Amino acid sequence: MKLYDENMPAPNPRRVRMFLAEKGLTVPTVRVQLGKGEHKSPSHIARNALGQVPVLELDDGSTLSESVSICRYIEALHPEPPLFGRTPKEIGTIDMWIRRVEMQVMVPLGAVWVNCHPATEAYMKAMGVKRFPDYGEQNRARAFNRLEWLDSQMEGDFIAGDFSAADIVALSIVDFGAFIDIPIPPGARRLRAWHERVSKRRSAKA
Amino acid sequence: MKLYDENMPAPNPRRVRMFLAEKGLTVPTVRVQLGKGEHKSPSHIARNALGQVPVLELDDGSTLSESVSICRYIEALHPEPPLFGRTPKEIGTIDMWIRRVEMQVMVPLGAVWVNCHPATEAYMKAMGVKRFPDYGEQNRARAFNRLEWLDSQMEGDFIAGDFSAADIVALSIVDFGAFIDIPIPPGARRLRAWHERVSKRRSAKA
Repeated sequence: MKLYDENMPAPNPRRVRMFLAEKGLTVPTVRVQLGKGEHKSPSHIARNALGQVPVLELDDGSTLSESVSICRYIEALHPEPPLFGRTPKEIGTIDMWIRRVEMQVMVPLGAVWVNCHPATEAYMKAMGVKRFPDYGEQNRARAFNRLEWLDSQMEGDFIAGDFSAADIVALSIVDFGAFIDIPIPPGARRLRAWHERVSKRRSAKA
Repeated sequence: MKLYDENMPAPNPRRVRMFLAEKGLTVPTVRVQLGKGEHKSPSHIARNALGQVPVLELDDGSTLSESVSICRYIEALHPEPPLFGRTPKEIGTIDMWIRRVEMQVMVPLGAVWVNCHPATEAYMKAMGVKRFPDYGEQNRARAFNRLEWLDSQMEGDFIAGDFSAADIVALSIVDFGAFIDIPIPPGARRLRAWHERVSKRRSAKA
């Protein structure tokens, strides 16, 4: 296996690094230089037609993209400790929460990022994609609301029962929110306690 | 198990029906009357805080939401035939394609649906959510482009190797696109052949 990772903070590659750390695994890693546009180079497009990182190159030379899919592949090869659940109910519940944090929280955060954030302005212009700042602002309010909703849904120490891939995905998203000035809402005490708990794990620094 | 399904065409509940049909399973079903707003009723909100269908009620009385998560739960209980893959590589690849069709194709289709389609206008107004028709139109072009991209990525008879959950998810999305007047692009011959192939399966009528 060989992991194509990035050289700057980005939520998706971090998930794979944290997942590997939780499994106690190390994988040879190539750092794709995003600032130099290496992820859009022909050699990287051949690995992932979407020109994104992370990408995992398998031992047969084929490649796998999408952070969560790479984690599922690793889990299938290295089942312990189980991070996608062991029983049918755990498997379903962890997947549900991965989908919910991505669809409910990451999608509006992403809309703020591409429509409002100064860091994406030049890139969007170069790609010929019009920005809609008012739409982004509506999503800023929605992201805030969805973080409060996530707080209201928290029942235990972790997102979906025991510590799982759902916590890894959620941490990457919540930290991305803070990075674009949409931090955990003041009243979201359970979410804040969860964030402190998960951020303290050694894998969170990976 | 008890399935809370809908009473009108919607892409997500269809996935679970098709998945069950592929497994040869039948599950007692309650049809939630979307037209009457039953999915937003307190009793349904208690099943799914997001007020969405489908929901699967498990035998212990707990509930599971999100179409793909429900399918994963069913697969864990009834592994044959495997629709989320058997080997690590199949498991990763099928998940990758589920994520790609959802993020690349369904997200822009959804943006057209909520921002431009007449059927959602009154609902969005009632929810106090502003529509951005120009943003929707940009996403219409993007959805078309992403359907062409999906066509360019097709290598075999199915989305991710053998017939899998990725075909079920993709069929629900492609048919939703046609429903909102974003059909398969004229030049997308492989995608069209795939659509005919998958639509012919008995499960596609479930």
